[in-house]
Amino acid sequence: MSTGTNATLPLTVAQVRGLIDEHFPGIDAGGRSIELESVGHMTASCRLLPIERNIRPGGTISGPALFMVADFTIYVALIATLGEPALAAVTSNLNINFLSRPEPRDVIANAQILRLGRRMAFADVRLFSAGHTELLAQATSSYALRLK
Amino acid sequence: MSTGTNATLPLTVAQVRGLIDEHFPGIDAGGRSIELESVGHMTASCRLLPIERNIRPGGTISGPALFMVADFTIYVALIATLGEPALAAVTSNLNINFLSRPEPRDVIANAQILRLGRRMAFADVRLFSAGHTELLAQATSSYALRLK
Amino acid sequence: MSTGTNATLPLTVAQVRGLIDEHFPGIDAGGRSIELESVGHMTASCRLLPIERNIRPGGTISGPALFMVADFTIYVALIATLGEPALAAVTSNLNINFLSRPEPRDVIANAQILRLGRRMAFADVRLFSAGHTELLAQATSSYALRLK
Amino acid sequence: MSTGTNATLPLTVAQVRGLIDEHFPGIDAGGRSIELESVGHMTASCRLLPIERNIRPGGTISGPALFMVADFTIYVALIATLGEPALAAVTSNLNINFLSRPEPRDVIANAQILRLGRRMAFADVRLFSAGHTELLAQATSSYALRLK
Repeated sequence: MSTGTNATLPLTVAQVRGLIDEHFPGIDAGGRSIELESVGHMTASCRLLPIERNIRPGGTISGPALFMVADFTIYVALIATLGEPALAAVTSNLNINFLSRPEPRDVIANAQILRLGRRMAFADVRLFSAGHTELLAQATSSYALRLK
Repeated sequence: MSTGTNATLPLTVAQVRGLIDEHFPGIDAGGRSIELESVGHMTASCRLLPIERNIRPGGTISGPALFMVADFTIYVALIATLGEPALAAVTSNLNINFLSRPEPRDVIANAQILRLGRRMAFADVRLFSAGHTELLAQATSSYALRLK
Repeated sequence: MSTGTNATLPLTVAQVRGLIDEHFPGIDAGGRSIELESVGHMTASCRLLPIERNIRPGGTISGPALFMVADFTIYVALIATLGEPALAAVTSNLNINFLSRPEPRDVIANAQILRLGRRMAFADVRLFSAGHTELLAQATSSYALRLK
Repeated sequence: MSTGTNATLPLTVAQVRGLIDEHFPGIDAGGRSIELESVGHMTASCRLLPIERNIRPGGTISGPALFMVADFTIYVALIATLGEPALAAVTSNLNINFLSRPEPRDVIANAQILRLGRRMAFADVRLFSAGHTELLAQATSSYALRLK
C-alpha cells in the first residue's frame, strides 16, 4: 500500500488507516481499541472502544486511554491533511483537562488543527461519550513536523 | 490488607503497593509495566518497564506510556503522603512536554507534590531514561481530592 | 449600580461593564486598554487596544498583554453568564499558545465557556488580529468559583 | 553597551540588564516593576515589585503581573546563558498554575532552564512571596530560539 506523495489530499479514512497499519504493524496487538470515524482537511474524528484495558475499577475510562485517543486523533488529522510526510510528526506538548467522569461507553474524539506550519502544528481535540453532548475532556497539543 | 486511617504517614512502598493492588485488581492484567521505586512525604519515584505494548516502531517509548507513568507516579505520591483517602483522587489537568526521544530502556519518573490542599493537589514530575541525566519529559498536574 | 441576584441572565455588555467598573475602580488607571465587544450565555468577546504599554519593540503586542486579554475575556464571559457571583472567580490555570507574531493592531479575543460547574469553570479563548482570520494565540483556562 | 558574541557566559546581572535596556528602551516607561536578582548558567531570579498597576482590589497581585514576571525571568535566564543571540527568543507556550493568593508584597521568581536545544528551550519557574516558602504560582514554558 502506498499513498505516495501524489495522493490527493486530504486522504480518505481508508488511506490513513492503510498508512498507519503499514508503519505501526503492532498497533493493534492487544486488540484494536481505536476506530477512525472520519477525516478531512485539518480535521479527524476517532472512536475509542471501551475494551478491558481502557477501563478502570468503578467502570470509568482510564486517563491514559483518553490521552491516547486525543493524541492519536490529532495524528490522524495531520496524516489526512499532509499525507505520508506527517507520519514523522512527534508530539511536543499535550495539555489535557478532564472535565467529567466518563461512563464505560465509546468515546468520540474530534480534533481540529488550528495552525499548521512547516515545523509545527497546533491542534485542539474534544472528547465526548458517544451520543452525549457533555464534554468529557479537552486537549490542546503541539506537534513537531519535518516538512520540506 | 488494610492501612486504615491510623497508618503512620508517609506509607511505605509495600503499603502503597498493597492499597493499589487491592483497589485496582486488574491493573497488571497485561503484564506489570510499572514498579514503585521509592515513596516519601510529598514524593514518589516509579519505573516504567519497556514491555512490548509501551514500545513504538523505531524503538521509542510511546507517548501514552510516558503520560501513564507520569500520572501514576503522582498518584503514588498522593497515596504515600495521605494514605487511603488519596485513592479517590482524580486527575483534573495534566500538561506534558516531550523533550527528547526515549530509547527503549526503563524510564524513571520522579514526582514531587508542590501544593497540597484539602480539595486540590498540584505536582511536578520529571522523566528520565534509567541511568541518564537528560530529561525525557516533564509534566505538571492537578488532582481533585475529597479530603475531610 | 447593582445587577443584584435578580438580574436577567446573561447580563448585557453595559451590565458587565458596570459591575467591573464598580468592583475594580482602578482598572483603567493607565488608560483603558480593553473594550467589551459582546457577551452572551457562556461567551464573550473583547478587544485589546494597541496602546503603548502593550507594544514591544519591533511593533508586536506583548505576551503579557495577550495573556491579560485572554484571562479577562473569560472572566467577562463568566460574569455575563452567572452575574454578580462570578466576580469572585479566580484563575487557577491558564495555558497559552502563541501561534503567530501579532501586528500592532487591535486584538480580538473570543472566549467560550466549555464547562461550568459550581466550583470550577473551564474555558477556551482564541485571539485574532482585528479583521484577520489567522489565529494569533489560543488559551484554555480553569477558574475556581464559589457558587452556592 | 555591547556584550558581543565573545562575552564570557553566563553573563552577569549587569550585562543582562544592559542588553535588555538597550533593546527594550521603553520597558520601564510606567515605572520599573521588575528587578534582576541573580543570573547563572540555565538559571535566573527576578523580583516583581508591588507597584500600583500590578495590584488588584483586595490587595492581591494581578494574574497578568505574575505571568509577566514568570515569562520575563525565563527570558533573563536564556540571555544569561546564551548571551545576545537569546534576545530573539519568543515564547511559544506558557502554562501557569496559580496556587495561592499573593499578598501585596514583592514576588520572587526563580527560573530554571530544563532543556536547551538550538531551536527550542524549555523552562520551569516558581513564584514565591519574598521571605515566604509557600509556592504562589508555577509555570512551564517553551521558547522558540533561532541559534546558529
